[in-house]
Amino acid sequence: MSQFDQEPGKELLEESYALIRPYVHRTPVLQSRAINEMAETSLFFKCENMQRVGAFKFRGGIHTMLRLSAEERAKGVATHSSGNHAQAVALAAQLLGAKAYIVMPSNAPEVKIKAVKGYGAEVTLCEPTLDARETTLATIIEQTGATMIHPYDDYRVIAGQATAARELLEEHPEIDCIVAPIGGGGLMAGTLLTAKYADHEVRVVGSEPTGADDAYRSWQKGERIPMVNPKTIADGLLTSVGERNFAIIKRDIETIFTVSDEEIIAAMRIIWERLKIVIEPSCAVPFAAILQQKAHFAGRKTGVILTGGNVDLGKLPF
Amino acid sequence: MSQFDQEPGKELLEESYALIRPYVHRTPVLQSRAINEMAETSLFFKCENMQRVGAFKFRGGIHTMLRLSAEERAKGVATHSSGNHAQAVALAAQLLGAKAYIVMPSNAPEVKIKAVKGYGAEVTLCEPTLDARETTLATIIEQTGATMIHPYDDYRVIAGQATAARELLEEHPEIDCIVAPIGGGGLMAGTLLTAKYADHEVRVVGSEPTGADDAYRSWQKGERIPMVNPKTIADGLLTSVGERNFAIIKRDIETIFTVSDEEIIAAMRIIWERLKIVIEPSCAVPFAAILQQKAHFAGRKTGVILTGGNVDLGKLPF
Repeated sequence: MSQFDQEPGKELLEESYALIRPYVHRTPVLQSRAINEMAETSLFFKCENMQRVGAFKFRGGIHTMLRLSAEERAKGVATHSSGNHAQAVALAAQLLGAKAYIVMPSNAPEVKIKAVKGYGAEVTLCEPTLDARETTLATIIEQTGATMIHPYDDYRVIAGQATAARELLEEHPEIDCIVAPIGGGGLMAGTLLTAKYADHEVRVVGSEPTGADDAYRSWQKGERIPMVNPKTIADGLLTSVGERNFAIIKRDIETIFTVSDEEIIAAMRIIWERLKIVIEPSCAVPFAAILQQKAHFAGRKTGVILTGGNVDLGKLPF
Repeated sequence: MSQFDQEPGKELLEESYALIRPYVHRTPVLQSRAINEMAETSLFFKCENMQRVGAFKFRGGIHTMLRLSAEERAKGVATHSSGNHAQAVALAAQLLGAKAYIVMPSNAPEVKIKAVKGYGAEVTLCEPTLDARETTLATIIEQTGATMIHPYDDYRVIAGQATAARELLEEHPEIDCIVAPIGGGGLMAGTLLTAKYADHEVRVVGSEPTGADDAYRSWQKGERIPMVNPKTIADGLLTSVGERNFAIIKRDIETIFTVSDEEIIAAMRIIWERLKIVIEPSCAVPFAAILQQKAHFAGRKTGVILTGGNVDLGKLPF
């Protein structure tokens, strides 16, 4: 029985925040007059693209790692991922001297496979299907006794991702609204928990690509509807929302807006040009939602969590 | 007779810093473990790409503007520029309620002309030759009585650019070396003056593209040799070094390194990928020099001034 078998409360979240602080970057918060004029409101961009491994995922990875028992840590950790979660787990394991077994699809970009290996992880390539990934991972876990680190459907991961919004509110207590994207829902559930226990009212708004809008449809219906054949440029948001994640989203979220790929690309370009930072398409989804729904955000002071910056510079959409 | 007819000293520079603080962004300083490992030293990147108008040039522009008499300000300011200086002067004038007359070559990118007009400046287009630019500017000044704001060869501009290094040393007093690029030499002369009056020894290193290495050759020879037909991807550094600028460079600089366009592009890409920020090619020149001259920077704590981020995202070199 672990503390994280159930949804973490205020005290446990505070403890988690203290626990990970020595390991994470305190990422900058940027503002831009030009963007505020464009959006007709006041925005605060939390740059998790500048987090270690280039994405907020490191927060959940290192937090989960820190919560393992010495015995678990000795046997190592395992996961399957083609993206930022793989790097997050690999680096977190390396920092704490644990072994990481990462299953990656054989069609993952060479640069990502190299990055994961660069953090000292043992990479196993498999066929690029969910079935092959899960089977391969199960075999490795059976052989090694490694602990699986889920990318989002785990209260330890959620508590880790919660710290991004925590830092944002600490630096700008005037913020009364936060927008984040929803993929598996790790970041969104964490953001909702941070808002729930904040000293003042903070509304949380979700955003999704129309081509991967399972959280939106699930929220409308009141029950999880997994995504079939997602299709969007926001490749970090293809995943369907997790069970623990959805329970929190359903209970606490103010609303969810969906945006087209055209809106995502336009928003991405504005952030590159005006904030002078490199973000991935998934990362532009919240700002695209704000530009689409100006009336909703007027008069608010809104934090935007920029989730990651791992983009192939040779394949930009503009 | 103005205070800025001669090289400004410590007190005047302090006053200038206090004067511009309400107007400039205090830009972030970024560090990266991966980049430090690559460069085998400790680097601190001062993000002037996130300065207003997207470049350090705003510091010199607003400072000069603030030093004008009420009478001068009433008649407005004028300059010719195809780049960041035009935007810097236009915004500085707008903020202080003065008129700005900007001469731009007819082949300047439409987006830059629009940006300058967006700051309320009166733009006059002319043939894309230095001669046409100077003649057009002279006519406007004769007609309006506007004050010319030189992009670099002016002690007011130099004192403004000096504040970037000033902020950097204030935030990281452990820095004992600063690298900046040399175009006209406004930023470099300002950085040298800041270092000269710092509380501890700070060495300043220059960097130039091999295709526009007039400052390097001038420094070697001990006298100014203007650049003929410069050719480099670092289009912010095509200008030959100015008179006042060179006098300071010649006296105080530790050394100057030159780098090829290939080295500039490689360094630019590393900064985009690792720091997750958008910089223009000129901006990557100091980091390219550090990668080329690792032994020179080993054991130092080196500040790098990232000069600007105004790049056409549709025309990236990678």
